Amino acid sequence: MAVYTQVSADELAAFLSGYDIGAAISFKGIAEGVENSNYLLETTTGRFILTLYEKRVAAGDLPLFLAFIGHLAAKGLPVPGPVADRQGRTLQVLNGRPACLIEFAPGVSVTEATPAAAQEVGVALGRLHQAADDFTAERPNALGPASWAPLAARCANPDGSSRLGEIDAALPGLVAAGLAAAADWPAGLPVTTIHADLFPDNVLLLDGKVTALIDFYFACTDLRAYDVAVTHAAWCFSHDGRQFFPERAAALMQGYGAVVDLTAAERAALPRLAAGAALRFTLTRAYDWINTPADALVTRKDPMAFARRLGWYLAATPEMMDGEMMGG
Amino acid sequence: MAVYTQVSADELAAFLSGYDIGAAISFKGIAEGVENSNYLLETTTGRFILTLYEKRVAAGDLPLFLAFIGHLAAKGLPVPGPVADRQGRTLQVLNGRPACLIEFAPGVSVTEATPAAAQEVGVALGRLHQAADDFTAERPNALGPASWAPLAARCANPDGSSRLGEIDAALPGLVAAGLAAAADWPAGLPVTTIHADLFPDNVLLLDGKVTALIDFYFACTDLRAYDVAVTHAAWCFSHDGRQFFPERAAALMQGYGAVVDLTAAERAALPRLAAGAALRFTLTRAYDWINTPADALVTRKDPMAFARRLGWYLAATPEMMDGEMMGG
Repeated sequence: MAVYTQVSADELAAFLSGYDIGAAISFKGIAEGVENSNYLLETTTGRFILTLYEKRVAAGDLPLFLAFIGHLAAKGLPVPGPVADRQGRTLQVLNGRPACLIEFAPGVSVTEATPAAAQEVGVALGRLHQAADDFTAERPNALGPASWAPLAARCANPDGSSRLGEIDAALPGLVAAGLAAAADWPAGLPVTTIHADLFPDNVLLLDGKVTALIDFYFACTDLRAYDVAVTHAAWCFSHDGRQFFPERAAALMQGYGAVVDLTAAERAALPRLAAGAALRFTLTRAYDWINTPADALVTRKDPMAFARRLGWYLAATPEMMDGEMMGG
Repeated sequence: MAVYTQVSADELAAFLSGYDIGAAISFKGIAEGVENSNYLLETTTGRFILTLYEKRVAAGDLPLFLAFIGHLAAKGLPVPGPVADRQGRTLQVLNGRPACLIEFAPGVSVTEATPAAAQEVGVALGRLHQAADDFTAERPNALGPASWAPLAARCANPDGSSRLGEIDAALPGLVAAGLAAAADWPAGLPVTTIHADLFPDNVLLLDGKVTALIDFYFACTDLRAYDVAVTHAAWCFSHDGRQFFPERAAALMQGYGAVVDLTAAERAALPRLAAGAALRFTLTRAYDWINTPADALVTRKDPMAFARRLGWYLAATPEMMDGEMMGG
C-alpha cells in the first residue's frame, strides 16, 4: 500500500539502459501489494510493473518466484511474466533492493466477487495447477500448518500470556479450535506448486475474463487442494466473514472442477484444509494487528474476518464447500 | 504518498456511468501527492487521474483550483485539465470525498534538476503567470507571510517553549532571522494567481520539455515574484540545501525572463521573497516533523533543507539570485 523505496528519474534511466525496452515516458509509484514497492512504468515500447522487493520477501526465494511466473507465462496462462535484460537476467538490484520488471496487464480487481468471477477464478486456478505439473523447483510453505501454533504463541505478551483476546473475546477459542483441527492435517494428497494467496486483489479481470493472476510471493510446494481451500476462503464470503455465499462457492468449485478432477480424498479433506487456510490468515492478521500501531498509515486487516470463516469451515461438510445448502 | 480512500471496482463503475469516457480497463492507486488519494485510470477512451481530496484540502477551495487548472488548460498550457461529466460538472463526491477526474499527462519528474530543465520550468512559470492574467477569482494565500509567526509559535510545547531546537540547534535562530526579515515584506508588487508549490515533483518532463504542471492545491492570489521565489528555492539547491547551483538559477531566471519582464522593484525584492519562501517550507516541514511520529510510514521532510536555503537567501543580493557568482 505504499512505495517504500524511491527511484529517481536518473536511477530509472540507468536501470533501463540494461534493457531493450526503450526510454521512460511515464513512471508512477503505485499503491499495490502490501509487501513491496511497485511502479507503473511506460516506455516507448510498452508498459511494465517495476517491483522492488522489501524486507518481508526473502531475497533467496525470488529466483523461484520469478521462475514460476515465467513458467506459467510461457505456458500461456494469464500471468504477467518477468522481463529479461540484454544479458537474459530478470532479477536485478536497484537502490539496494532486489528488483524485477514484469509485464503490465490490463484489468481491474473485483471487490465484491460475483459467481461469474468466482467461476473464472476457479478455471484459472485449475489451469495454474495443470501448468505447475512440470515445474520441478520446490519451496516449503513457510506459512503451512507447522507454523500456526508457533505463530499463535507469538501473539502474546512478553510473559507468554495471549493477546488474542484483546482483539476479540471469541478469538482465543476459535484459534484453539483451529489449531486442534489442524493437528489432524490430511496426508497423502496431491502436491504441486501453489499460489497460496489468490485473493480478489491478486486477480485482474476485464469484460468478465481473467486477464492476470499476480503477486506470486507466497508461492510454495504444497497440497493442490489447500490452494483451492485458500481461494475458497478468499472468494466465497462477505469481507467481514459473516456471510457465506453458496452461489460463489458453487461457481468456484465448478470452474476448478472443469479443469482439475479433485480426488475423493481431496474433496473429503476440503473443509479441514479450508479451516487451516482461514486459521493461517487469522493468525497472520492477528500478529500484524498486535504489532501495528493503531495510528499507523497502513490499514490493519481485521483478524475476525477470517476467524469467522474458520468457525464456518470447522462446521462444514464437503457438500457445503460446493455451495449445497442445508435444509433446502 | 498513499491511497487513503479506497475505491472498489463497483464504485468506480458507478462513478464512470456519469461520464462519456467509456469503461475501466485498468485502475491503480498511485503514490503521488502527499495530501490526496490518486488513481491512475485507463478506460476504453483514454487515461485519467482520479483524485479524491482528503482532509488537508479545504473542500471550499476546490472549485477555484479546478477553475484555475481548467483556465490554464484551455489556454494551451501544459496543465492536465479537469474532465466534465455529462452534466458539465467536474467536481464530484465519491466515497464521501470530493473527487475529480483529471486528464493524464505523460512525463517524468526530475530528481536532480539540470539547468536545461530549470530553464524550461522558468518558461512554463512565465506562461502560467501570463495565462493567469485574466483569471479573476481570488483566494488568499493561507500560507503567506501573516501565517508564519503563528505557525512558528505552534512548533512549541504546551507551555509555549519552542521545539524547533529539538530538530536542529541552528533552527531557532534561522527562523527568528527569517521572521524578522519577513516583517518588512515588499508591498505594491504585481499580483496574480500563482502556483505557490512548483517543486520538481509537480513538473513532468519528457525529452527535455515540460509536459505537465500539476498539483495546484496551494494556488492562491499573491505576488507573481513570490512564485518565482518559491520555484527558485525548489529548483536551485541540492536536496539538503547545502549547495546552491548558480547555473540552474541563471537558467531558471533566463527562462522566466524570456516570457515575463520582472519590474525593477520585483527584482530588488527577490532575495527577501525567496527568504520568505524558504521560511514557509521550513516552518510547514518543522510543524509536520514535530507532529509526525518518527516511526510513521510517511517520510518526514527535513526542515533544515529549507532553513539552509533561508540562510543563503538572507545573505543574497538580487544578482546572486540570477546565478552571478561573487568574486568571480
